[in-house]
Amino acid sequence: MAKYVYFFGNGKADGKADMKNLLGGKGANLAEMTNIGLPVPAGFTISTEVCTYFYAHDRKYPPELKAEVEAAMRKVEEAMGTKFGDPKNPLLVACRSGARDSMPGMMDTVLNIGLNDTTVAALAKLSGNERFALDSFRRLLLMYGEVVMGLKGHKDHPFDHILETAKEKQGVKLDNELNVESLRWIVEQSKAAIKKYTGKEFPTDPHEQMWNAIGAVFGSWMNDRACVYRRQYAIPDEWGTACNIVAMVFGNMGDDCATGVALTRDGSLGTPGMTGDYLINAQGEDVVNGSRPTKRIEETLGQDMPKAYKELVDVGHKLEQHYRNMQDIEFTISRNKLYMLQTRNAKRTGFAAVRVATDLVEEGLISKEDAISSRFIPAGDLSQLLQPVFDLEAKKAADKAGKMLTKGIPAGPGAATGKIVCSPQKAEQMKQADPNAALILVREETTPEDLRGMKAALGILTAVGGVSSHAALVSRQMGKVCIVGAGEMDIDHHTGIVKVKGLTLKEGDDLAIDGFTGEVFAGRIATKPSEVVQVLIKQELAPEKSAWYRRFKLIMDWADQHRKLNVRTNADLPDQAAEAIAFGAEGIGLCRTEHMFFDHIAEMREMIMATDTAEREKALAKMLPHQRNDFAGLFKAMAGRPVTIRLLDPPLHEFLPQNKAGQEEMARILGKSVAEITRRVEELHESNPMLGHRGCRLGIVYPEITAMQARAIFEAAVQVQKSGVKVLPEVMIPLAGFKKEFTNQEKIVRQMADKVFAETGTKVEYLVGTMIEVPRACVTADEIAAAAEFFSFGTNDLTQTTLGMSRDDYGPFISAYTDPKKADVLAADPFATIDQDGVGGLMKMGVEKGRQARPGLKIGICGEHGGDPDSVKFCHKIGLNYVSCSPFRVPIARLAAAQAALGK
Amino acid sequence: MAKYVYFFGNGKADGKADMKNLLGGKGANLAEMTNIGLPVPAGFTISTEVCTYFYAHDRKYPPELKAEVEAAMRKVEEAMGTKFGDPKNPLLVACRSGARDSMPGMMDTVLNIGLNDTTVAALAKLSGNERFALDSFRRLLLMYGEVVMGLKGHKDHPFDHILETAKEKQGVKLDNELNVESLRWIVEQSKAAIKKYTGKEFPTDPHEQMWNAIGAVFGSWMNDRACVYRRQYAIPDEWGTACNIVAMVFGNMGDDCATGVALTRDGSLGTPGMTGDYLINAQGEDVVNGSRPTKRIEETLGQDMPKAYKELVDVGHKLEQHYRNMQDIEFTISRNKLYMLQTRNAKRTGFAAVRVATDLVEEGLISKEDAISSRFIPAGDLSQLLQPVFDLEAKKAADKAGKMLTKGIPAGPGAATGKIVCSPQKAEQMKQADPNAALILVREETTPEDLRGMKAALGILTAVGGVSSHAALVSRQMGKVCIVGAGEMDIDHHTGIVKVKGLTLKEGDDLAIDGFTGEVFAGRIATKPSEVVQVLIKQELAPEKSAWYRRFKLIMDWADQHRKLNVRTNADLPDQAAEAIAFGAEGIGLCRTEHMFFDHIAEMREMIMATDTAEREKALAKMLPHQRNDFAGLFKAMAGRPVTIRLLDPPLHEFLPQNKAGQEEMARILGKSVAEITRRVEELHESNPMLGHRGCRLGIVYPEITAMQARAIFEAAVQVQKSGVKVLPEVMIPLAGFKKEFTNQEKIVRQMADKVFAETGTKVEYLVGTMIEVPRACVTADEIAAAAEFFSFGTNDLTQTTLGMSRDDYGPFISAYTDPKKADVLAADPFATIDQDGVGGLMKMGVEKGRQARPGLKIGICGEHGGDPDSVKFCHKIGLNYVSCSPFRVPIARLAAAQAALGK
Repeated sequence: MAKYVYFFGNGKADGKADMKNLLGGKGANLAEMTNIGLPVPAGFTISTEVCTYFYAHDRKYPPELKAEVEAAMRKVEEAMGTKFGDPKNPLLVACRSGARDSMPGMMDTVLNIGLNDTTVAALAKLSGNERFALDSFRRLLLMYGEVVMGLKGHKDHPFDHILETAKEKQGVKLDNELNVESLRWIVEQSKAAIKKYTGKEFPTDPHEQMWNAIGAVFGSWMNDRACVYRRQYAIPDEWGTACNIVAMVFGNMGDDCATGVALTRDGSLGTPGMTGDYLINAQGEDVVNGSRPTKRIEETLGQDMPKAYKELVDVGHKLEQHYRNMQDIEFTISRNKLYMLQTRNAKRTGFAAVRVATDLVEEGLISKEDAISSRFIPAGDLSQLLQPVFDLEAKKAADKAGKMLTKGIPAGPGAATGKIVCSPQKAEQMKQADPNAALILVREETTPEDLRGMKAALGILTAVGGVSSHAALVSRQMGKVCIVGAGEMDIDHHTGIVKVKGLTLKEGDDLAIDGFTGEVFAGRIATKPSEVVQVLIKQELAPEKSAWYRRFKLIMDWADQHRKLNVRTNADLPDQAAEAIAFGAEGIGLCRTEHMFFDHIAEMREMIMATDTAEREKALAKMLPHQRNDFAGLFKAMAGRPVTIRLLDPPLHEFLPQNKAGQEEMARILGKSVAEITRRVEELHESNPMLGHRGCRLGIVYPEITAMQARAIFEAAVQVQKSGVKVLPEVMIPLAGFKKEFTNQEKIVRQMADKVFAETGTKVEYLVGTMIEVPRACVTADEIAAAAEFFSFGTNDLTQTTLGMSRDDYGPFISAYTDPKKADVLAADPFATIDQDGVGGLMKMGVEKGRQARPGLKIGICGEHGGDPDSVKFCHKIGLNYVSCSPFRVPIARLAAAQAALGK
Repeated sequence: MAKYVYFFGNGKADGKADMKNLLGGKGANLAEMTNIGLPVPAGFTISTEVCTYFYAHDRKYPPELKAEVEAAMRKVEEAMGTKFGDPKNPLLVACRSGARDSMPGMMDTVLNIGLNDTTVAALAKLSGNERFALDSFRRLLLMYGEVVMGLKGHKDHPFDHILETAKEKQGVKLDNELNVESLRWIVEQSKAAIKKYTGKEFPTDPHEQMWNAIGAVFGSWMNDRACVYRRQYAIPDEWGTACNIVAMVFGNMGDDCATGVALTRDGSLGTPGMTGDYLINAQGEDVVNGSRPTKRIEETLGQDMPKAYKELVDVGHKLEQHYRNMQDIEFTISRNKLYMLQTRNAKRTGFAAVRVATDLVEEGLISKEDAISSRFIPAGDLSQLLQPVFDLEAKKAADKAGKMLTKGIPAGPGAATGKIVCSPQKAEQMKQADPNAALILVREETTPEDLRGMKAALGILTAVGGVSSHAALVSRQMGKVCIVGAGEMDIDHHTGIVKVKGLTLKEGDDLAIDGFTGEVFAGRIATKPSEVVQVLIKQELAPEKSAWYRRFKLIMDWADQHRKLNVRTNADLPDQAAEAIAFGAEGIGLCRTEHMFFDHIAEMREMIMATDTAEREKALAKMLPHQRNDFAGLFKAMAGRPVTIRLLDPPLHEFLPQNKAGQEEMARILGKSVAEITRRVEELHESNPMLGHRGCRLGIVYPEITAMQARAIFEAAVQVQKSGVKVLPEVMIPLAGFKKEFTNQEKIVRQMADKVFAETGTKVEYLVGTMIEVPRACVTADEIAAAAEFFSFGTNDLTQTTLGMSRDDYGPFISAYTDPKKADVLAADPFATIDQDGVGGLMKMGVEKGRQARPGLKIGICGEHGGDPDSVKFCHKIGLNYVSCSPFRVPIARLAAAQAALGK
């Protein structure tokens, strides 16, 4: 028989930590904490299987569930010595969601279930605190009304309205200042509001309350923001959430009570020592929703509640030792007694991830392999250590100029300069309109509804909330620059006006925020490279002077010990190549030669306008020395590492001016008539340039272009080799879909190589291979590999052709496609992460067929997917030899490759 | 040991007819004719293996070849009683190419090898005819100079020039009027010209002549026109040609000599009875190159040479009985004795093919299966029987108006009206510039160099030459409308002026030619449907009154007995559907619904301009009744046959005016501002519309469009079914590459079906399937087939995406791609014939994976390839259930399907 309900309490639990799939993270850890003797209120977890059943059966429960819940409830009653619904000694419970992976704030919670007019009186009597009892009841009514009865987001905001009216009437500002009379008024008004807005009475039966809350929790798995969140973090819909029913303990019974959220280390930079927020005499969401200014655990909890604080620090240490990871905990202190309500591995920034991972290795808690696992450092988060920070001099100057506005709590390290935007919706729209828009989202506080807007912003700045606030938490996870609790700011999100220290800023004004220090500046501030970049690339900082570099290098060294994939870079210029080498690149996987033509656009245009081969050759001859120089520079920089050079790829019309002024200027420079230019532009116009006259099709129609490029490559190679530097050019024919396309171009390349070697009396080792970027190349990879010496998957174009989807044109439907509430076709943008079933299927075929014809064929990837951790792992899985990505993604690819090799 | 040389002579031969692969068609049939006792001069064939060796070894021969040739030459000498190079009794030989498949006029021939100053004197003495000996020598010098020494096509045309000068000097017009003195002068001038233009002497050594001629014949396998020809008829380069050395027999020894070319039946319409051309006192190419007006065998040979004529007719009959096919023969009559120089299966028009096939069945020579084989009727040639012919009344009127210009020999049946063009190069250019250009190529005569220009023309008209002329032969094979020997025309191809009976026409003027009657008209003449179409579609002609219909029907009936593939049609309108049924269509494989939107463009535009769903639904509601009517019409016409309806596919911008005037008009009609229209047009603009917001992506973003179309389909289906006509709609979701794209749209369709069935109280059987047109759909066909009830390959788009090649943009490179002398990437246009390795590979995968998930999955093809015989055969091979093509291609597809099933 299926077991759906798992009890915990009295020091023993049905579940344990490794049952997260079934019990969710919260449920499994409540069980685990119970088992290891930590103070956890009794309760039970309804498993994720019930959630799955619920959605598969039109929102009905398994028939066995009711009896199991009732049995578990009896055990909770026993453990707590109270009784659910008892008119004299009532048990109250919380009903909380909890999925396998933490999805903070995405799903719903209802506290104080079990209260009604009878039990609230009993609670008042038992606690001797009527105010507390009424405060609990008004919270239940609020949460039940919003979550269960669907009034959340109602345009009238009835509960906010009631609360504000009560405060006004009584003349107080904060919730906890409300007196008994006000609270009683709120309770009655809330009941009336529920009746008015839903047509139904608030149910007085505790069981009815509980079952409806359970239904709401399971229902919240499919709410909009939960779905968005799952997409962002690739959590499958199939997992479902568990539902935890936990006996209430109260942080709102008086000043010897508190509730809080803590991290066992700093979540922003990973510095050791507990950090967090708490509130005296408060309950539940109060801490994270910014309704009152929170206090910081590391600053005042030791004085406020010395015993409980010591106990909390001890528990934190115990949990770190037990879980061998930094923890994020929720607790309530009820009449000076500590209760643990949750623990989970803490979300952290890339900085904190690197620091915690290396520190834990040094503390002997985890192995090096653990440290470089994606659990400790999601590979993509490494990029945070490479992003620019504010230039100290520039910051000083801004300060001197009076641009420093205020200081908040630093919650996401980094430097962000951008335009103020006060509404998440607007941020989202602006980002859609201009994907390069740099935006700073400035808010009183953020809520789970703001998720999409936060994603669109470069940095986040809030007036309210601590390091445990929603804004801080989400920023940590998204790697956004973030400052919270900048309380001096007064933000009107309706008008978009931000006032601070008498200064008025408006939406669109520039703002600079320093996520390391919490400083907020008006205007823009120049950035400088991060410490790691200063050491590696700029060589302006001695390695031993940078602790961040030391940690970064440890991680990279550990990663290199395990990875099987080589990591190359996409670079066209010697300085890019040098940067990439500093980041650990082992070769160039893609040198696009386009810029070489753009750099000599007049000659290029002369060639495009040529009416015969002789004229074209004349123009090409002018480009030869430049290309040769460029290649020589690259070969020198790469010092014997392989350099894959792609021959000219874009359609010729990309090199011609499309507007009248440009065409007139071009006519003047080339001494042609404007009509001639216009005619050529029209002649070269294409309906679908993606599928047009480009790639090897250019070199096939104009073999002299290929010949010139080959000459430039081999002359440069010979020259550099003669200078004593090893060279290894790999000439790459783009867009070949037919073996004969490849061999046509290969022949020109090899003939030119022989010619140059004969002319110079020097031979150079080289390869000729092809870019695999149309499906036909994968399907006939065996034929092509019979001739080609290497393959490189051009997954950008391969994705476009395999899916029949243009990256320039997918805007109008891709958001519907990746939105689980709309079309729900794709889990991720296929141009960011390889579509493994489709494009990946063809890649697999290409690898298999290619190696079938040429065992040991060298195969890489040079599309933008080469720097995406999931795609790197896929490349490892299908047996590629290397990935190639932009220089700043090289460390990420190295780490992802190691994670792939370790399988974790 | 390899055998390279095959002797024939004295009634016995090393080879035989079924050794064509080795000996080429000419060599194998010379051997066969020798074996069956026909009069063939002795000779030997150097096999195609030597040609292969020649190209694989840098144009060298196998070392054994020389000895084998010498041995064979001795046998020829024995058989003929003469000796090669003997100063007194010299053997002369011809050196002729001969590939596996006949490639008429494409490769080179050298006659009279063995002549020099010594042997020419001996020949004069032996024959008692100095004129003949000199004529033979000047022919050798001409052919050797052009073919072996490369002077063919030289800008000075030295040999033409010498011949014309000699005729002028002597004051005669025709070659055969030249006297001994003139011929001697020509011989000396020709030797001098060879020396002058090549710097080399004409070799006097007969062996040197022969070996050089052999080299030229093998070399001609790779000449330009041979390569073009092979591409057109899909002959692999690897086959190579054989080379035949045959003892000369002379048709130019006097008036008891002749040479000719004959068909055992009429090549244009297949009428029984030998036809052909001959010339008295002539040799070799004279008959086909139009240098003298030929005589027609069926008209005068019986009188000119009664004995030889009777023998020729007998031989023709014997050959037909032996080869069980209509033959094309070459013969020489030397002093009243008949010699056979070649026989081969005759090229014929589609009309002749159908008539000969049905006649031979009735004559008991071949089986019905043979008759419908591609050897007897290339499926594509059937289309000639369906093409329009001139309307008799219109022709009479033109005649009355004095538009009839002249009459030639009808050589390719059909009606062609088009613009005069006098140069094949210009024809080719004009066709490239405008693929719809209707051109009539008007030439004095045509040569193999004109092939590309002939291909570009709709009809061909020559002033010189008979039914065996190059123009007639090529037209027969290409299915072009053709008239030859319209001798009253005077054509100046330099100026493009055509004079006939005092009337002057110029290039660009309209001309109408009747390939059934040989009549040539100035201006345009209206056409009417062909006999078959009159019977089947127009029902204006009683079936029993049309012999062509009778034959057509026989072929179709025989084909239907064998084919396994169903044949459907692509049709959007009831009258198209009715036509297709008349041609044998068994369903609609593709109803594009685009026209339904174009027909109500104002509502469509209203919908596109709508800013919300409600507005869109309003506009769609206006379209609903029209679409319902259209579907009802189709269902009625198809009377229970399956009808596959594709939901809206093209991107929305295709429905908006792209120019200013159109936008202004649209603004006026919709009552919107021009700025609004322009903004929407810009918003909908796409960089690569092929890969943009189209197909199911429209229905996913605008589900209301899908809902409206589904409602129209099911309401129409219910209505027609209620009227007592069976209906079988198959709703096709376009462009699905992901299962979820399909299921998203499928759900809307099925929900609407249920709704309509509930509303009307009637259920209709239907299927929901998808079009497979992006590679991803093939790669994940198993997933998609789990939901889709049928597949239909949209091979147009599948080709574009698999090859990364846009049909709108491939112009600038596709000619280089299909040109074996240039890139030589593709044997055929991939949009005409399925790229079997690439696109076909994905189709195969799609079929296998699809049926793996859903055994027995119904799979068809609805791209334009569905009417291409080679593609139909491929579809049969990979196990499709049906092909779908345009109505007029249905008979072709039926025949091709039978040929596929029969494997021949």
